[in-house]
Amino acid sequence: MEPNHEPTRPLILVCNDDGIDAPGIRALAAAMTSLGEVHIVAPIDEQSAVGHAITVRDPVRARPWDFDVPGGTVTAHAVTGTPADCVKLAANQLLPREPDLVVSGINRGPNTAVNVIYSGTVSAATEGAILGYEAIAFSLCDWEAEDYSAAARWARRIAARVLADGLPTGLLLNVNIPALSDDELMGVEITRQARSRWEESFIERSDPFKQPYYWLSGRFVNLDEGEHTDLNAVERGCISITPLRIDLTAHDALDTLRDWSWTPDVQVQDET
Amino acid sequence: MEPNHEPTRPLILVCNDDGIDAPGIRALAAAMTSLGEVHIVAPIDEQSAVGHAITVRDPVRARPWDFDVPGGTVTAHAVTGTPADCVKLAANQLLPREPDLVVSGINRGPNTAVNVIYSGTVSAATEGAILGYEAIAFSLCDWEAEDYSAAARWARRIAARVLADGLPTGLLLNVNIPALSDDELMGVEITRQARSRWEESFIERSDPFKQPYYWLSGRFVNLDEGEHTDLNAVERGCISITPLRIDLTAHDALDTLRDWSWTPDVQVQDET
Repeated sequence: MEPNHEPTRPLILVCNDDGIDAPGIRALAAAMTSLGEVHIVAPIDEQSAVGHAITVRDPVRARPWDFDVPGGTVTAHAVTGTPADCVKLAANQLLPREPDLVVSGINRGPNTAVNVIYSGTVSAATEGAILGYEAIAFSLCDWEAEDYSAAARWARRIAARVLADGLPTGLLLNVNIPALSDDELMGVEITRQARSRWEESFIERSDPFKQPYYWLSGRFVNLDEGEHTDLNAVERGCISITPLRIDLTAHDALDTLRDWSWTPDVQVQDET
Repeated sequence: MEPNHEPTRPLILVCNDDGIDAPGIRALAAAMTSLGEVHIVAPIDEQSAVGHAITVRDPVRARPWDFDVPGGTVTAHAVTGTPADCVKLAANQLLPREPDLVVSGINRGPNTAVNVIYSGTVSAATEGAILGYEAIAFSLCDWEAEDYSAAARWARRIAARVLADGLPTGLLLNVNIPALSDDELMGVEITRQARSRWEESFIERSDPFKQPYYWLSGRFVNLDEGEHTDLNAVERGCISITPLRIDLTAHDALDTLRDWSWTPDVQVQDET
């Protein structure tokens, strides 16, 4: 046999939080096959709103998974854990070598504004960036969408761009794609996270023993009318790309806080 | 009866991720009683490493809880949910009015560097800040510590300072306290999150059916030899106070990414 002289193709790890059987990860994996060798490691169940949870008190399991994509060959494992668990386990145990790119999604529904911190989809990409890999989270801004094909084409373009040029160290990209056709999409806008909050309104119910329990509900409130936010870009039909960094430090507040006095005597009069 | 003419005391919500029976929350609640009216709303079970998870697919329950602190009266509820759930449910359902301050901890073990994003303790304070309240997370930098008294005295000083002066909008404080006596503590340092990572090393085991499962293990690696990091301050015996902001945007990378070309034609040659 002739030795294989083809250059090694990029290894692309595909994860999500909607679970390995969700349509969004199928579309994303298919779109990645033209860019590299695709390995899927994703939660066996839906893991939405898990934030950056990791499983430390229980073991996790990984099971080989049948995963066919049109015109491509992929390897897949389903994991009994969170999106961050999947990326850690993939990098450490399941992949044949280090990934060149970690992509997460395509999420069912947007991950914009404050929702970024609750997002399992973003968490998988964040974990990739922490481990030192290029990483991108993709979300389709429609909870009811069935057609991920336009979003997947844009995911491929953006992933190709990142594979070609690389991202600055420690960055990941959070991409939100409006649920529009190719013709209707207005191009890419580089954005920042909008300031926002949820106004909670728990719904109280009583069980048969007359004990209360509560369902989380609420209304999303945009507090940010500024330009170039993720929310605003998506509303105008643009694909929002927000560079995220893992450092949460409020650097602009450091000097202010250094001017505060922290000595015990001026703090609390009634200290015992 | 005479009407009560005392001014309303600040309402202080106390949460944690180690669970309502952990010694750290007992010490923190006791320390807060001299500053205001204390309400404890905390997970019924340990919730470490849950990140910013919220419970959206199941209801949560809140149960009144006996919680005595020396020399003080507190109200307490135990919640079947994550730290972020606790703060949301408290603010919306359980507290008699909006809190003036949300404090979380005192965590068993540090929440410095990259661990901030996995931390349930920080998550409770983050949720408080999202909801618009002053918020502080406290951690004692020792996994084996039994004595939280020195840490609790510093928690009271820092909380008093924040109640008196207020924090800039949207900020929270992440406080890490070395496990030292009052005499040994070297004062306060305002810090930034150190860059760091975990080098994972999953431990593989086989079940009786010869199927593998994996325990997350690993070694913490500090990548940051710079000054004024949270890790460095704690190592030198200082109380580290890091201001955190919820905006993850890498603002310094926006211009670079705006210079990239995102048009389809230059991105992927083999697009179908």
